[in-house]
Amino acid sequence: MNIRTDLALERRELVNDECQGVECDEYTKGNAKITRIKVLNKQGEEAVGKPIGTYITIEGDLISNELPSDDNRRNAVSEELKRLLPKDGTILVAGLGNSDITPDALGPKTASGILATRHIDKDLAETLGLGNLRSVSAISPGVLGKTGIETVEIINGIISRVKPSAVIIIDALASRRLSRLGTTIQISDSGICPGSGVGNSRSEISEKTVGVPVIAIGVPTVVDASTLAEDIMQIKGENTPPADSIGMMVTPREIDTVIDRASGVLSMAINCALHPQMSAEDLSALI
Amino acid sequence: MNIRTDLALERRELVNDECQGVECDEYTKGNAKITRIKVLNKQGEEAVGKPIGTYITIEGDLISNELPSDDNRRNAVSEELKRLLPKDGTILVAGLGNSDITPDALGPKTASGILATRHIDKDLAETLGLGNLRSVSAISPGVLGKTGIETVEIINGIISRVKPSAVIIIDALASRRLSRLGTTIQISDSGICPGSGVGNSRSEISEKTVGVPVIAIGVPTVVDASTLAEDIMQIKGENTPPADSIGMMVTPREIDTVIDRASGVLSMAINCALHPQMSAEDLSALI
Amino acid sequence: MNIRTDLALERRELVNDECQGVECDEYTKGNAKITRIKVLNKQGEEAVGKPIGTYITIEGDLISNELPSDDNRRNAVSEELKRLLPKDGTILVAGLGNSDITPDALGPKTASGILATRHIDKDLAETLGLGNLRSVSAISPGVLGKTGIETVEIINGIISRVKPSAVIIIDALASRRLSRLGTTIQISDSGICPGSGVGNSRSEISEKTVGVPVIAIGVPTVVDASTLAEDIMQIKGENTPPADSIGMMVTPREIDTVIDRASGVLSMAINCALHPQMSAEDLSALI
Amino acid sequence: MNIRTDLALERRELVNDECQGVECDEYTKGNAKITRIKVLNKQGEEAVGKPIGTYITIEGDLISNELPSDDNRRNAVSEELKRLLPKDGTILVAGLGNSDITPDALGPKTASGILATRHIDKDLAETLGLGNLRSVSAISPGVLGKTGIETVEIINGIISRVKPSAVIIIDALASRRLSRLGTTIQISDSGICPGSGVGNSRSEISEKTVGVPVIAIGVPTVVDASTLAEDIMQIKGENTPPADSIGMMVTPREIDTVIDRASGVLSMAINCALHPQMSAEDLSALI
Repeated sequence: MNIRTDLALERRELVNDECQGVECDEYTKGNAKITRIKVLNKQGEEAVGKPIGTYITIEGDLISNELPSDDNRRNAVSEELKRLLPKDGTILVAGLGNSDITPDALGPKTASGILATRHIDKDLAETLGLGNLRSVSAISPGVLGKTGIETVEIINGIISRVKPSAVIIIDALASRRLSRLGTTIQISDSGICPGSGVGNSRSEISEKTVGVPVIAIGVPTVVDASTLAEDIMQIKGENTPPADSIGMMVTPREIDTVIDRASGVLSMAINCALHPQMSAEDLSALI
Repeated sequence: MNIRTDLALERRELVNDECQGVECDEYTKGNAKITRIKVLNKQGEEAVGKPIGTYITIEGDLISNELPSDDNRRNAVSEELKRLLPKDGTILVAGLGNSDITPDALGPKTASGILATRHIDKDLAETLGLGNLRSVSAISPGVLGKTGIETVEIINGIISRVKPSAVIIIDALASRRLSRLGTTIQISDSGICPGSGVGNSRSEISEKTVGVPVIAIGVPTVVDASTLAEDIMQIKGENTPPADSIGMMVTPREIDTVIDRASGVLSMAINCALHPQMSAEDLSALI
Repeated sequence: MNIRTDLALERRELVNDECQGVECDEYTKGNAKITRIKVLNKQGEEAVGKPIGTYITIEGDLISNELPSDDNRRNAVSEELKRLLPKDGTILVAGLGNSDITPDALGPKTASGILATRHIDKDLAETLGLGNLRSVSAISPGVLGKTGIETVEIINGIISRVKPSAVIIIDALASRRLSRLGTTIQISDSGICPGSGVGNSRSEISEKTVGVPVIAIGVPTVVDASTLAEDIMQIKGENTPPADSIGMMVTPREIDTVIDRASGVLSMAINCALHPQMSAEDLSALI
Repeated sequence: MNIRTDLALERRELVNDECQGVECDEYTKGNAKITRIKVLNKQGEEAVGKPIGTYITIEGDLISNELPSDDNRRNAVSEELKRLLPKDGTILVAGLGNSDITPDALGPKTASGILATRHIDKDLAETLGLGNLRSVSAISPGVLGKTGIETVEIINGIISRVKPSAVIIIDALASRRLSRLGTTIQISDSGICPGSGVGNSRSEISEKTVGVPVIAIGVPTVVDASTLAEDIMQIKGENTPPADSIGMMVTPREIDTVIDRASGVLSMAINCALHPQMSAEDLSALI
C-alpha cells in the first residue's frame, strides 16, 4: 500500500471490507456526507496506517465561501470542533505550511483569519461590547526549510509560554483522488506529521509530543501524480500501479481559489466554535 | 487524437513516424535540446493539428533564473526572437492570462518585466544614457471572463493606435507530459488561440486576425488529468485512454516558483532581443 | 494656489467665499455628507481650476466594507451613478493606476471586482438565471511607465471595438488633507487627467478625447508632503507655504486596508448601479 | 520632546550641542555617511531617550538593490554585524512586523530572505558543497493584534528550544524626517521595543528580557504626520509644534518599492555577515 494520502477515509477504502480495530460510521447532513472513523487499537493502526484516534471527514462539492451550502459545511466543522475542544483554558491555533507555495498556504491563510483575543483583557472586551471572550492565540510557524526549526519545536516553545489547554493545527493534506481536492475536510484528534503526505515527514505534533490535546484540521490540496494515475486506472479495473512515475505532486489549476475559499470556511468555523455567543457576521466584522 | 496539448512537438510525437507536410530538425545547444518543426502545408496541418508555421521548442531542466544554465536558455530564446522579429518598427508585447490564477499568470508576469520604451523620446533616452532605444510597448489584456472582451479585440484596439510592426504574445500552455511543465519553451510564428489548451478556445490571435506578424512564446504550466494518466499508462504500454476522467487541469505543487522563474527568463530574453546593444545586467537595472 | 488636490471640494475651499460660475449644494444622508459642486462656465473653471461639470463628493468616516455605514456610502455612490449613466448601451469600466504601488492600486482592484457581462449572451444569462443583464466590460489599462502607451490611447483603442455608451473611470486621487484619505469619494462627469494629482499629468480622458460620456470616480489616497504641512500650518493660522519641501507624496501607514475597503465599496456600488435588478448579495456571489 | 522617532541619530539632533553621557563619531565610506553614537550611562539615556548601547546609522540615497551603491551599503551593514555578532553558536533572526501592512513588512520580508541552515547537518552541507556552514534560524513572529501573543513571549519560547548565542531583530522604524524613509539603516545592540515608534509600545526585546545579546536592525518607513509638519516648520524657523494634528503615521507613496529593496539589502547583508566564506552571488542562488 504505497498510495500517498493523509485521509483516514481513503486509507480505509484501500483495505478489504472488514478491518479489525476500526469503527466506521456514515451519515449525511444537508449536502455534506460525514464519515466518522475510529481507529481503536494497534490492529486498527496497522490496518489503516493511521494512529489511534477519531477521524471525521466532511465531503461535499468544491468549497465555496459564497454559497449557503458552505454555511452547512462551516457549521458541520464548528459542531465537531465544539465536541473536541476542552471547555476551559486558552486555545492556540497554528496554521502550518509555506505561504509562498499556493497549495501549501491553507494553514497560514486560515491562521490569519482567526480572531486572536488572548491579549484583550476583560475590561477592554467589555468596552468593545465583546462580553466574555474565550482566550485564543494564533500563529503561523513557517516551514523547516525556511526557518531551520522543526515546527514541533516552535509550537512547543510557544506552548511553554502560552500554556494552552489545546492546540488546533491546520494543514494542507494529500489525497489519492483529484475529486477530493478542495472538497473534503478532515478533523482528527490524533495529531499530525507535517509534510508526511508530500513525502517530507517532519516530527510528529500530537498530545504525546506537545503535552496538550491536538486537534488537526486539513483539506486535501495535492495528489501524487502516480497515485492520481493509479486512481484513474483502478476505476478502469487495472491493478498494477505505475512504478515509474515521478513523485511529483500536482494540484488543480484553480488552486488559488480553492485555498481562498477553504481557508475562509475553516477560519470562520474555528472562530464560531471558539466564540459560540457571537454570530458569523459579528465575527467577520472583527477580523 | 483527443490528447490536450499546445506543443507542436507533442502533437508530432503522437503521429506515426512519417508525416507528410512536416519538417523536423533537432539539435542541442549547451544543456538545451532545440527542436524546429515546420508545418509546411494543409497535409502537415492535418497531421499535427497545428496551423502552418514554424515551432521552435527549447527543452531543458526546470527553468531557474539563478543558475548559469538559464543564461543558455535565455540566450536561445533571444536568438530565435531576433531571427523572427522585423528589423524596424515598434513592437507590442502582450502577456495573456489571468494574474489571479497562478498557473495562468505567466503572460502578465512576463509583460510586467518588459522594458517599455515607446513613451521615451530620443532626447530623454540620450539624457538617460540609453542611446538609440527600440520602441516597445507592453500590455496585459486580461481574460474574457473578467473583462467581457475577447483578447483579440483588445489587442486589435491597441494595434489600431500603436501600429506595431509585430506583436509578441506570451501565454501559459498545456502539455501532455508532467515533465515538460516549467521545463520547455515553445516559440512560434503561427499565432495562438488563447485557452485552447485548457478546453476554452478563444478567437485566434494571428497575422490573419490582427494584420501584423504574431510571435507566440509559451511555457507549459498545466496538464489535463486524463492526459497525464494516459501519458503514464502509455509508458507502461497501455493504449486505451481513460474515457471517464474529469477534464480537470492540474499543475505542479511548486507552480509559484515555476511561474516566477519562467517569467523572469522570458521577459529578460525578450528585452535582450529587443535591445541587443544593452547587457542583461543593464536591462535589469532599468526595470 | 499651488496646492495639490484632485478634489473640486478642496479647490473650492481655497477660494474666497463667493466665486462666480460655481454652484454649490450640501446635504447629509445617513452619516455621509454629500456636496454637489457645479462648475458652470469659464469663470468657474478659473476660480476652482477644474473643468466645467458636476463634482459630487461623499464624505464620511474611514471607508470600511464591513460596517452598515458602508451600505450607506455604497448606496449613495450607486444612486449618483444611476443618475449619470446613459439608460442604454454597453458600459466600459476602466480601473486606472499601477497595481504594484499600493496607494495607486484603487483602479485595478475596483476593476477586478466588476461583474463583466458583455460576453454572456441572452441564452446563457437565462440559463444562469441572470435574466436581462446589462452589458458591461472592465479593463485595467496599466500605467504609461510600464506599458509605453498613454492610458487614453488604450481606452480609445478599446472603445473603437467595444463601442460603449459611456466609460466609468476609477482612479486614486490626491487630497490636500490627510483626513480625507480613504474617507471621501468624488464622482464627476468632466473626465480626468490621470496622474495630475501626483504631478505627473497624462493626456486627458474626457468626452472630448474619447467621444462618449466619461464618469470618473475617485478616492484620495495620497497627499503631497508640503501640502500636508501647509494644511496643518493653516489650521494654526500660518499662511506662508513651505517652499522648500520635497514634492514627495505620502499615504497613510494603513494604506493596504484603505485600498481593500475602498475598492470593495466602489466595485459593489458600480455593480449595483449597472444591475439594479440584483441584490448586493447576489452580485457578490457572481464575482 | 514629543517628537516621534526610533533613530538615536535624530534624538541626538534634537538635543543641544553638548550632551553628557553620549559619544558621537561620524565618517563617510563610499557614498554612505556612517554615524556611531554611544549612549554611555544614565545621563546619556536621559539626554537622548534611548537605552545605554551603541547605535550605528548608515545614511545614503534611497536604498536600491540594483545599483553598485547598494553593494556599499550591504557591505557596511555586514561589517558592523560581523563586529557585533558572537563568534560561535547558532544565530536566530526574527523579522518583526505585520506582513499585510506594506510599511510594516520590512521584518517579515527580510526574514524570508535569510538562508536558514540550522536543519542542514554537516554531511548534507558537504554533499551540497556548502562546507562548514554557520547554524542560522529565521522566524517571523507576527504581531500582537493578529497572534494574541507578545512578540517577546514568542521569541523567548523559541529561544528556549533553539538556544541561540544571539538574536538579530529586524523591524520597520519611525523617523522624524521624510528624507530618511528608505534611506537610512540603524544597527544597535541595546534591543528594541516593537511598535514604540508608532505609539504602540510592546514589551522590550533586549538582552535583559531574552537572556542573550540582541542586535536590532531597522529602516525608517513611517513618519508621524505632525512630526513631519514640525520638521518642515523648523526648517522654516518656526518652533511651536502643531498640537492638533492627528497622530496619523504616513509613508511614501512608493513604499512597496522601498520595502522590497530595503529587505533585499538587509537580508543579503545578514547572510553575508553570517556566511563570510560565501559570495553574495552564491548566497543568492541558495535562497
